[in-house]
Amino acid sequence: MTDTKLTAEAHCDGPCGVYDPASARIAAEAVLSMTKKMQALEQPFNSGNNEQIVAYLNTMSRYSAIKEEEAQKCKDDLLVLWTDYFKPQHLEQFPNLHTTFWQAAKLCSACKVEVSITHAQELMDAVKEIHEMFWQSKSREVPWIQAS
Amino acid sequence: MTDTKLTAEAHCDGPCGVYDPASARIAAEAVLSMTKKMQALEQPFNSGNNEQIVAYLNTMSRYSAIKEEEAQKCKDDLLVLWTDYFKPQHLEQFPNLHTTFWQAAKLCSACKVEVSITHAQELMDAVKEIHEMFWQSKSREVPWIQAS
Amino acid sequence: MTDTKLTAEAHCDGPCGVYDPASARIAAEAVLSMTKKMQALEQPFNSGNNEQIVAYLNTMSRYSAIKEEEAQKCKDDLLVLWTDYFKPQHLEQFPNLHTTFWQAAKLCSACKVEVSITHAQELMDAVKEIHEMFWQSKSREVPWIQAS
Amino acid sequence: MTDTKLTAEAHCDGPCGVYDPASARIAAEAVLSMTKKMQALEQPFNSGNNEQIVAYLNTMSRYSAIKEEEAQKCKDDLLVLWTDYFKPQHLEQFPNLHTTFWQAAKLCSACKVEVSITHAQELMDAVKEIHEMFWQSKSREVPWIQAS
Amino acid sequence: MTDTKLTAEAHCDGPCGVYDPASARIAAEAVLSMTKKMQALEQPFNSGNNEQIVAYLNTMSRYSAIKEEEAQKCKDDLLVLWTDYFKPQHLEQFPNLHTTFWQAAKLCSACKVEVSITHAQELMDAVKEIHEMFWQSKSREVPWIQAS
Amino acid sequence: MTDTKLTAEAHCDGPCGVYDPASARIAAEAVLSMTKKMQALEQPFNSGNNEQIVAYLNTMSRYSAIKEEEAQKCKDDLLVLWTDYFKPQHLEQFPNLHTTFWQAAKLCSACKVEVSITHAQELMDAVKEIHEMFWQSKSREVPWIQAS
Repeated sequence: MTDTKLTAEAHCDGPCGVYDPASARIAAEAVLSMTKKMQALEQPFNSGNNEQIVAYLNTMSRYSAIKEEEAQKCKDDLLVLWTDYFKPQHLEQFPNLHTTFWQAAKLCSACKVEVSITHAQELMDAVKEIHEMFWQSKSREVPWIQAS
Repeated sequence: MTDTKLTAEAHCDGPCGVYDPASARIAAEAVLSMTKKMQALEQPFNSGNNEQIVAYLNTMSRYSAIKEEEAQKCKDDLLVLWTDYFKPQHLEQFPNLHTTFWQAAKLCSACKVEVSITHAQELMDAVKEIHEMFWQSKSREVPWIQAS
Repeated sequence: MTDTKLTAEAHCDGPCGVYDPASARIAAEAVLSMTKKMQALEQPFNSGNNEQIVAYLNTMSRYSAIKEEEAQKCKDDLLVLWTDYFKPQHLEQFPNLHTTFWQAAKLCSACKVEVSITHAQELMDAVKEIHEMFWQSKSREVPWIQAS
Repeated sequence: MTDTKLTAEAHCDGPCGVYDPASARIAAEAVLSMTKKMQALEQPFNSGNNEQIVAYLNTMSRYSAIKEEEAQKCKDDLLVLWTDYFKPQHLEQFPNLHTTFWQAAKLCSACKVEVSITHAQELMDAVKEIHEMFWQSKSREVPWIQAS
Repeated sequence: MTDTKLTAEAHCDGPCGVYDPASARIAAEAVLSMTKKMQALEQPFNSGNNEQIVAYLNTMSRYSAIKEEEAQKCKDDLLVLWTDYFKPQHLEQFPNLHTTFWQAAKLCSACKVEVSITHAQELMDAVKEIHEMFWQSKSREVPWIQAS
Repeated sequence: MTDTKLTAEAHCDGPCGVYDPASARIAAEAVLSMTKKMQALEQPFNSGNNEQIVAYLNTMSRYSAIKEEEAQKCKDDLLVLWTDYFKPQHLEQFPNLHTTFWQAAKLCSACKVEVSITHAQELMDAVKEIHEMFWQSKSREVPWIQAS
């Protein structure tokens, strides 16, 4: 299969035209927020208080599950941009296209496996970089706005 | 957009006619059951026994996840009734319609965040109230049956 | 259950702090885009050409399914704001809170049932109104940006 | 692996105690309702009216998808009863246990593949039979109530 | 409903022809792998180190959730074979068909509820047995290959 | 972020060790099978027979939806290999790594948008190529087996 053929079949995966990195950004913010909250939660195991331990484990489980889900959502949203929005002709404008998305996707996975504020912040930075690439490719200036 | 217009466009979200609050009731029962089981589970941390700790954390994680899922299912089922079954003309018969559903939905969220038997029981009560409103609106008498 | 109690238990459904109506806006844009594309597609039934009919029905099915999914995503995202972000104290600032969300949710359902550009546009307007209420409640000015 | 061993490991898949065939019954009602609506819908192809064709295909696609989803939900709910609620000791009381569930599950699949009112009605009957087996196994009398 | 009728309506649930027990096998391998990892993880509660406890609980939650998901996937894939691939005429060739699948499905549930290497290994064995039945029914010899 | 850092953080997204391209292969086979069946189905519009039209549209909708779902599953499974299994050190052995996965993912999307036997076959070929790369990277010889 040649690049020429791929250019010809450049259909997007669905309706086209409503790509927006904002959804990946919202998910990355949630990952960072959950990571911080998990680190800040005080462990109750020395207290021996059963009710406190149950509440703590419920919260920890939920934060971990939300972090997992949002990191996956972030990864999915980024990969839709990579596989469907960006096309062979963009490779000239963005020669680092593949590496940028590969590293961003690997950061999503790292943010699941670990509870690392450093990697969650690096994920935010990676999404911001993709936000800029994306709007630059459309010759539009769209501000980087965060919800939190 | 006026109420008149909304009355005119009173299509339900899908097939109509098979609304039944029983599915929200089953989910609320599961939330209450999980909450009680989480509070009843004995914590093994003083034992220092690794296998017991692993079994306990597996159970706790699962109960928390099932509680989360069932609370969400309960919320979804209730909100389908609010957004699709109930229509502007019902507001006269049930002036507290919005408040009732808002509080019931907030209770679903509270039952996720907390491990509270009190709130899980209040959720059961709220679902029972909606069960009664629903069948009253259809002028049918349907008994309130619990599975557990 | 009294309002006072609800104010006291004003936990959000999860991590708090990363609410953003942008995700509902992206979904509403997709609903409008799909609706327009479905209306614009030329029907091939007079041609009798089997391959054209198959391609047309595949596209129609997919557009309908994507419209359904995005309308549901829009509804879900709006209802999270209504049930978890907005709290009893907001009712003074926004006395139409319940009605606004009820009508917006009913528009999501209408956009599934119909292929109506009018209702899809009204949904966009409703999401914009909620975008403004939301940021006003946080005393922040956030521009209304569309991806398409 | 012997039956004896299975009896010993008779843990249910999750929390136990909130099994209720009502959810399978609601899903089967929706399958029957969708099947009837699909058969009743008037086809617009002779009209040549594009807007009517688009509306018809949107409705047909949605009804088919809802039928599929509800038939799957029915199947899932029935199979949870078979795999988790019913245990080896029930086989004496219900020697047709496996056959009953196998045929009911096959009916769920048939209701997806076809648009058959006959099979959708047979599915309702099969769910009613399972409703009776289930409550009989718990020595409770629970009425068979339909929402539609 | 008679067997004859079921033989006549022997449609599969979807497209036919691409049934493959390999997907259930991959899921069962993941269940076994997760179970072993959960047992091998060293508990950090004596250390009192908050960061270690957070990392441990994040890992434990995730492993438990992945085990749950893969056991469910295994169960779903097996039950598709039982309800859609195997037909009444196979009962002569495999008189233990129902029992084999019932026990395999119950093992999936047991692997969720417990963290048991023994049961996870028995699940692998059950899937292997079904792999052999399946390919035997198609008169094909397909090697049993594991990924791990 | 440098390659060196990424090598250091080479955690996989979950449990490691059970990667297997067989699941992507099964999904690609289903895409090809559905595509062929859609092309082979005889259109009933000239007959004017309502029941035949309903049955045809139900089948077409389902085949299209299954094709969509399996193409997405194929894409997801491939992208897990790209983002989590393959690591920077593999780039020397497979300098076309990024291009191979990008084209395969774009083929998944093309198989959704179109009903093209050519592209569905190209997807099978792409998955076979990835199957070979994958097992080569593990220095294992695993035969390429198809279910259909």
